[in-house]
Amino acid sequence: MERPRHQGMAKNTYMRWRLPLVCLLWEVAMIILFGVFVRFGPEADAHWEEEKREKNLTSDIENDFYFRYPSFQDVHVMIFVGFGFLMTFLKRYGFGAVGFNFLLAAFGIQWALLMQGWFHSFKSGKILIGVENLINADFCVGSVCIAFGAILGKTSPIQVLVMTLFQVTLFAVNEYILLNLLHVKDAGGSMTIHTFGAYFGLTVTRILYRPNLEQSKDRQGSVYHSDLFAMIGTLYLWMYWPSFNSAISEHGDAQHRAAINTYCSLAACVLTTVAFSSMLQKKGKLDMVHIQNATLAGGVAVGTSAEMMLTPYGSLIVGFICGIVSTVGYVYLTPFLESRLHIQDTCGIHNLHAIPGLIGGIVGAITAAAATEDVYGKEGLIKAFDFTGTYQTRTPSVQGGFQAAGIVVSLLMAFAGGALVGAILKLPVWGDPAAENCFEDDIYWEVPEDEESDVYHMHNPDKPASP
Amino acid sequence: MERPRHQGMAKNTYMRWRLPLVCLLWEVAMIILFGVFVRFGPEADAHWEEEKREKNLTSDIENDFYFRYPSFQDVHVMIFVGFGFLMTFLKRYGFGAVGFNFLLAAFGIQWALLMQGWFHSFKSGKILIGVENLINADFCVGSVCIAFGAILGKTSPIQVLVMTLFQVTLFAVNEYILLNLLHVKDAGGSMTIHTFGAYFGLTVTRILYRPNLEQSKDRQGSVYHSDLFAMIGTLYLWMYWPSFNSAISEHGDAQHRAAINTYCSLAACVLTTVAFSSMLQKKGKLDMVHIQNATLAGGVAVGTSAEMMLTPYGSLIVGFICGIVSTVGYVYLTPFLESRLHIQDTCGIHNLHAIPGLIGGIVGAITAAAATEDVYGKEGLIKAFDFTGTYQTRTPSVQGGFQAAGIVVSLLMAFAGGALVGAILKLPVWGDPAAENCFEDDIYWEVPEDEESDVYHMHNPDKPASP
Amino acid sequence: MERPRHQGMAKNTYMRWRLPLVCLLWEVAMIILFGVFVRFGPEADAHWEEEKREKNLTSDIENDFYFRYPSFQDVHVMIFVGFGFLMTFLKRYGFGAVGFNFLLAAFGIQWALLMQGWFHSFKSGKILIGVENLINADFCVGSVCIAFGAILGKTSPIQVLVMTLFQVTLFAVNEYILLNLLHVKDAGGSMTIHTFGAYFGLTVTRILYRPNLEQSKDRQGSVYHSDLFAMIGTLYLWMYWPSFNSAISEHGDAQHRAAINTYCSLAACVLTTVAFSSMLQKKGKLDMVHIQNATLAGGVAVGTSAEMMLTPYGSLIVGFICGIVSTVGYVYLTPFLESRLHIQDTCGIHNLHAIPGLIGGIVGAITAAAATEDVYGKEGLIKAFDFTGTYQTRTPSVQGGFQAAGIVVSLLMAFAGGALVGAILKLPVWGDPAAENCFEDDIYWEVPEDEESDVYHMHNPDKPASP
Repeated sequence: MERPRHQGMAKNTYMRWRLPLVCLLWEVAMIILFGVFVRFGPEADAHWEEEKREKNLTSDIENDFYFRYPSFQDVHVMIFVGFGFLMTFLKRYGFGAVGFNFLLAAFGIQWALLMQGWFHSFKSGKILIGVENLINADFCVGSVCIAFGAILGKTSPIQVLVMTLFQVTLFAVNEYILLNLLHVKDAGGSMTIHTFGAYFGLTVTRILYRPNLEQSKDRQGSVYHSDLFAMIGTLYLWMYWPSFNSAISEHGDAQHRAAINTYCSLAACVLTTVAFSSMLQKKGKLDMVHIQNATLAGGVAVGTSAEMMLTPYGSLIVGFICGIVSTVGYVYLTPFLESRLHIQDTCGIHNLHAIPGLIGGIVGAITAAAATEDVYGKEGLIKAFDFTGTYQTRTPSVQGGFQAAGIVVSLLMAFAGGALVGAILKLPVWGDPAAENCFEDDIYWEVPEDEESDVYHMHNPDKPASP
Repeated sequence: MERPRHQGMAKNTYMRWRLPLVCLLWEVAMIILFGVFVRFGPEADAHWEEEKREKNLTSDIENDFYFRYPSFQDVHVMIFVGFGFLMTFLKRYGFGAVGFNFLLAAFGIQWALLMQGWFHSFKSGKILIGVENLINADFCVGSVCIAFGAILGKTSPIQVLVMTLFQVTLFAVNEYILLNLLHVKDAGGSMTIHTFGAYFGLTVTRILYRPNLEQSKDRQGSVYHSDLFAMIGTLYLWMYWPSFNSAISEHGDAQHRAAINTYCSLAACVLTTVAFSSMLQKKGKLDMVHIQNATLAGGVAVGTSAEMMLTPYGSLIVGFICGIVSTVGYVYLTPFLESRLHIQDTCGIHNLHAIPGLIGGIVGAITAAAATEDVYGKEGLIKAFDFTGTYQTRTPSVQGGFQAAGIVVSLLMAFAGGALVGAILKLPVWGDPAAENCFEDDIYWEVPEDEESDVYHMHNPDKPASP
Repeated sequence: MERPRHQGMAKNTYMRWRLPLVCLLWEVAMIILFGVFVRFGPEADAHWEEEKREKNLTSDIENDFYFRYPSFQDVHVMIFVGFGFLMTFLKRYGFGAVGFNFLLAAFGIQWALLMQGWFHSFKSGKILIGVENLINADFCVGSVCIAFGAILGKTSPIQVLVMTLFQVTLFAVNEYILLNLLHVKDAGGSMTIHTFGAYFGLTVTRILYRPNLEQSKDRQGSVYHSDLFAMIGTLYLWMYWPSFNSAISEHGDAQHRAAINTYCSLAACVLTTVAFSSMLQKKGKLDMVHIQNATLAGGVAVGTSAEMMLTPYGSLIVGFICGIVSTVGYVYLTPFLESRLHIQDTCGIHNLHAIPGLIGGIVGAITAAAATEDVYGKEGLIKAFDFTGTYQTRTPSVQGGFQAAGIVVSLLMAFAGGALVGAILKLPVWGDPAAENCFEDDIYWEVPEDEESDVYHMHNPDKPASP
């Protein structure tokens, strides 16, 4: 049954009515749901003056806006420019990379505000939102951007939107289990964002396996300038990752510490990435794929532990290891996954998010289990792990166990959810491209017909010279 | 009289003495005027320690710098990278787009500091500036960047500077009428920046109408990579727009609320833009022009109301509508304006700024008129609309009327000012390019003579077809 | 003895074992040294709650994180995207520009945290780090990025790393002499970063002089799109420079003032750069090299004085002069330095950093010497120049003298250090490229084999397929 789906020109990729219908209906649904449920939180509401009096706040600067807005904007840039441009490395899929990422994220943040709101900010029938909700919505969408990296170039925009709808939903459920039921710490999302997002995407792409993808092989690489565009994405992800991992940490020392740990881990990661990129290539030359991706693994891998007392030294070790693991993954694991396990992972998210995400979960569990009053201080320990209320008797080692359980739950949710969503996306109604048209913007985009594009196609050599 | 001006090689685009003269003289004028008038405001002055004591501030964090500087930097990026790169979509006008935008903005912010300073920050003979003045200067220049979008590729750098000089002046007058005389709210500038800037630019380009512009038709499109460069501009405008609309709002809840409303409106706008971009094209393919521009209309259209209690739900509705209106405008209105009204609007600012700006003004008037003590709280209502002093008896519905008057004033100022400036720019002394040389960097820039440029010129048409 | 080194294919640029070895060994060294020395400062440590009580801080917002983190991120972007992309202007060295800059900066910040930590943050055997240390590390690395601009395209990645190791060390020593021994103010680093970094780099490139570099002449220019990539770097440097110069200034008015002064200086600089770029070219056309570089000179030149009461008017004057000096430098001085003094300065750092850095040092000395209690207030003057403790009797004019001494020390350190490091880099073991392979990514990078790259080679259709 699979073969005919992948045989050539027969496929109907016509989006004219399907895509608009999905976009408009879903946006109308968002408006209705927002109308019923979403209101401003107290710090964004015009009643804030009264709120301030009640809470005895002396200054407007105590508004959470000023604690988190700069980090929010950095995270926002990571989602839209970071992920968007990182995926522009393909020579003929830049529009799809940055454009579909834009589309999925714009829809995803709305749906995430609702889903996460129902779980975390629901008060007397309303979801009350503030800047922290915006960050969390961006985080949630980050996991979809990751999964999108696995299926990049092989799916229609409708499939991307359908995946977003389901993945955001499952993300919110998984996050609720981890943060609320298991009472796990995961500020930078090694488990909730990276492990979940990556294995979800890998499962989806496995189910959407295309046996004839080599027909698009010539478009699966980069060109010189597309690699430079991708570096814009890489650098923004790399530079702003300290903001990502610290964005929703507790005010004060935790945010401060999370930024420092992430900064250190990322710095170390660059050096081992360069080392192994050169070492694993016969001629010793550096590979842009590694520099664009593996340098970021260090940020993923401290996503759980960055706000803990990992210490700068511990962060360097984590970054050191992840640069190696990720680069080795690109060289050996990605081809293996494709040829043996039929997992076609366009951007190599297995090396950038899946493995480092797992490492991050484990590092987090160990760091939590190893926490002592000596290192954190009595108050500091309670604050760092929120050992209050129901959890006031939990010890660090028990916390470590729960952290580990969080990894397992995230994995199970990713596999189950990915299988479900993959099956849905396999239905022959979504307008995905034929195998020989993958990684080609021309299927879903008006592509400029001009001199440069002639260069690519060289079809009309007799075109008159332009000035 | 018009035809000869547009007939071929005769035009003198030699800039060597004219451009340096304008730049140097005007900069000297700036230095003299700054020397006479501009001083540091109390929060940037070395006497701040005393100021703090007087105002009973306990911490340096109360300095306005910490409330506004992150937003300022985001706005700064929007003006220089956002607008600059958005306009690089033309295949052979990237240098002019980003370079002339740089030039006009660098001059404009200085002149705006003076003009706005005289109107708003003038105390005992001096203009006292702080971070809020820098934001306002960037805002003012934003309206010039918008107008520049209409005349892009068809004007000399001197014309751009002359337009900047006049437009900044008129902007400041219009802003003074709206904010001080009408006591209108317009934090994100739907009226002062977008409506005024766009109709000003459209009037200018109407007066500079070029009947033979089709001679440059082949350069009026994009190439593959220029569309990606433009997406950098789009995304930075889109991501940072919440900072734009909240940058000069009141400290606390108003800033917080403005950011949330804008975030929501922009998200909705992306989905309807995608829907209509696909729907309005026969093959159902997406058009980069729409994605690059219409996705931003939602930010424009909440420019007045974002700091009010528009609610996330209301913001989604505004974004929903504007994505549609703007995309439809690109498909139907722009060609109509050019063929029937002789308005040649290079970047389609009518669809991105003019119409959404008007909608924004109207939404602001309605939202203001609909404000109640129930929704805002007693104190909140007074604070939100500054119903104090002379205005303490003004009611929301009266405020709505004044808001509507603000739209009319902005339109009148734009038409009158644009007509005046258009007439000035029509004088045959500014070195604008001939019709067949429009949208061509080579006229005003040293363009690299190299292999890639050979590519543009197609020297080896017999090269074997690639992909 | 020099000639044979530069004769053709004989050179061994094989990196496979050398580069990985350096990266891995050095990173291991970092881990060990961090393990022994580096700990969280009190504001990033989990004991912060106790610290807060001790210091009587009422709110988490008093954590230095909130004063400096937004500026830190802006500086971070300048180092990685700003410098990285500014150097992508070369047609075939974009990977090396952005990639090696990434590598050197990632290593450099770690080593700088240690070196600067030993000098400035060493308490009871440990280096205690916080966000200010991260900024300072970025600053230190900024001086290496500057020096890298001089040798761009002519060195191997190992040479770049070796230079980083030494330059960071010497930077820290020089900074210690200036800030601690001479008690000099230099918040934006006109002396410590720009003067030192630039003359260091120029000395290195002088010693590495390549007589046959004209063999790579055809790759020493830009292509159309590489110039646009470079503009990304330019604009981020330009926009965020106010953050750079204010990032480590005193909380409150000093940070505020430094941002305003820098904003003004940069704005003025753009106009004189444009003026002279047009004036100095026969056809009056603008040169992208000037727009990309000289527009930034104004930021360099207020690096020392921005936090002082330079006043907006004074800043405009400094920017005015530096735009002229820098542009004139590109036109006349760079060719002269190359032909007469054998200084091959790829990016023209002499015009962007060296001369404006010197001007910045001088302007700082004059501004300091001219400081009065009238202008600063009694408290303000003491705070601005830290006339406390040992220095409480120092007068402004004496301070001016010490500032001037700081310039001289920086120059001496740069020449001596550059000579030493140049000599080390001249050893024939580092794998630098042959003269005819300079400015070519293909030597150290896997370059995509694709249509576009064919395009680049179009001039020599008989060129052998590259690896």
